[in-house]
Amino acid sequence: MHADRRPRSVTRADVARYAGVSTAVVSYVLNDGPKAVAPLTRERVLDAVRVLGYRPNAAARALSMGSADMFGLLVHDNRSPFFAELCHALDQASADNGRSLLIVNSDREQVATSEQIRDLVSRQIGGLIIADVLTAREQSLVEALGIPAVVIGQFGETDGLHSVGVDFAVGARGATEHLISHGYRDIGFAGSAARYDERERGWRDALSAAGLPLGPLVHVPFTHQGGYDAAMQLMRAPRRPRAVLAASDQIAIGMLAAFGQHGLRVPDDIAIASFDGTVAAEFVWPRLTTAVQPLEQMAHATVRILLASGDDRRHHEFATELRVRESCGCTVA
Amino acid sequence: MHADRRPRSVTRADVARYAGVSTAVVSYVLNDGPKAVAPLTRERVLDAVRVLGYRPNAAARALSMGSADMFGLLVHDNRSPFFAELCHALDQASADNGRSLLIVNSDREQVATSEQIRDLVSRQIGGLIIADVLTAREQSLVEALGIPAVVIGQFGETDGLHSVGVDFAVGARGATEHLISHGYRDIGFAGSAARYDERERGWRDALSAAGLPLGPLVHVPFTHQGGYDAAMQLMRAPRRPRAVLAASDQIAIGMLAAFGQHGLRVPDDIAIASFDGTVAAEFVWPRLTTAVQPLEQMAHATVRILLASGDDRRHHEFATELRVRESCGCTVA
Repeated sequence: MHADRRPRSVTRADVARYAGVSTAVVSYVLNDGPKAVAPLTRERVLDAVRVLGYRPNAAARALSMGSADMFGLLVHDNRSPFFAELCHALDQASADNGRSLLIVNSDREQVATSEQIRDLVSRQIGGLIIADVLTAREQSLVEALGIPAVVIGQFGETDGLHSVGVDFAVGARGATEHLISHGYRDIGFAGSAARYDERERGWRDALSAAGLPLGPLVHVPFTHQGGYDAAMQLMRAPRRPRAVLAASDQIAIGMLAAFGQHGLRVPDDIAIASFDGTVAAEFVWPRLTTAVQPLEQMAHATVRILLASGDDRRHHEFATELRVRESCGCTVA
Repeated sequence: MHADRRPRSVTRADVARYAGVSTAVVSYVLNDGPKAVAPLTRERVLDAVRVLGYRPNAAARALSMGSADMFGLLVHDNRSPFFAELCHALDQASADNGRSLLIVNSDREQVATSEQIRDLVSRQIGGLIIADVLTAREQSLVEALGIPAVVIGQFGETDGLHSVGVDFAVGARGATEHLISHGYRDIGFAGSAARYDERERGWRDALSAAGLPLGPLVHVPFTHQGGYDAAMQLMRAPRRPRAVLAASDQIAIGMLAAFGQHGLRVPDDIAIASFDGTVAAEFVWPRLTTAVQPLEQMAHATVRILLASGDDRRHHEFATELRVRESCGCTVA
């Protein structure tokens, strides 16, 4: 007799029977509404759920809901302060539009990013946000999957996909021009060699427009350690620059640490301007003068694009705003 | 005739027919295997997917897979550097065990945390990690849903759920004793008033064991701004302490900024020790002496608990290790 019994999933009806209530009441308890349930009844239902090991069938629920009430966000590494703030802004913008946001890191060595994209899409997301640099193959996969998608924070237009970002060249040019306005003639740049960086171009353009020679150029990773190493290279150089533009706040903060450790005063011995406008840039001393990316606007634009899912794929560009503080040599109240 | 036609979903068979290949080949292209597909055939399949707007049915796929290959992580605010590093360590530990990790922020004002928990569980996750303080009701919901769950980073045992964390009191006591060993007699504390903090107890215990009076105590949020405000309060106090224990690196970094801005030298005028051991603690000057939480070990323990899903719910406690740098007054090579 018993050998005949195959285990089957516990249903809402089982819970209702065990608790001595209707299935509707079980739903009210598990969904926290729409109707109120008396505390004692609520406890009885929760007990039944516990005892029977009831678990709402997720896939069935997703099927019945039709889903598409959430977005997926692929971020290379959630620890980078800029991307952490970007994730949070995207979460808030999604919430403002009644969507949940599932954040997934793509810097896993164990899994190909294409596998992660497929995995996210198979979870019934209504849109995919990509805060990473995709290979051509990954990008064609996203297109093939036919899901509304936006690439955010990249250096420019992404053929075939919507993209959202700032004008890196103009932002970097403005920050460099600000350093020039302080009278500095020898201005270096610390940025990434990972791919051609529009910020580097902005720095070059500002210097040549002012008739100044290119200062020293160092390529390092976009990390605190990268900034630290950049500063060490600049200090060891035959001619130390009077000022430097850092391609990110994180690089600038690593540089500040290295200069501090080696007794160099910022801005008196070497001035710094940077890029991003993260919160951390305000909580160092001297505080960083930085080209601020308008994260909230960028996040809301991203969500609007996903919801509209129009077919005119294009690059949506925002302007940075230079936030002047003390690291460049300014005096701020 | 046409009025009769109801839209139906595009299937894999439609894609195969359009591309002139078998449905198996469509699968190989979309799953990147197991068999290789010639580049031109691959392009044809991707074109068909694009043209027809084919989207693999996620819920159906989840049902057929049986799922449970992913974990959900509920984090209060992914921007906090400590929690950002914790998220990343949990992602890596999940990947080491072949699981994906979906990260969700719980500080949304638009949605109740209980709603987010239900939402995550309905997505067929095999385990839930909670990096937040739950209300009693939220916790009973997690228990009722019957899903393996671990609360991480909390102050102590969580009845009814597994939990993973460090011994905050012992860690804070050790850091305070280190400040005492420098000869400082007047040692303050900057931490949170949100709930009773075991770190505050560790600080008190160290001072009374050494026969020292309690230094000034300030309660601020766990943010850079909170640390900045704490330093302002300590500077305005009738008697400024000689040293201070910060309950987090983030608070300590905010304090460093305030002291720097007001011309106070660390450690000469006021020494600092802190808690967490985040990367940022190493990239300030002076670098922070801090009680390091062993994130990797904690993350792997969390994943092990979820995979074992045993019923002996208990608190898994780890020891911090004091990392000595310059902010306390030590000289480090």
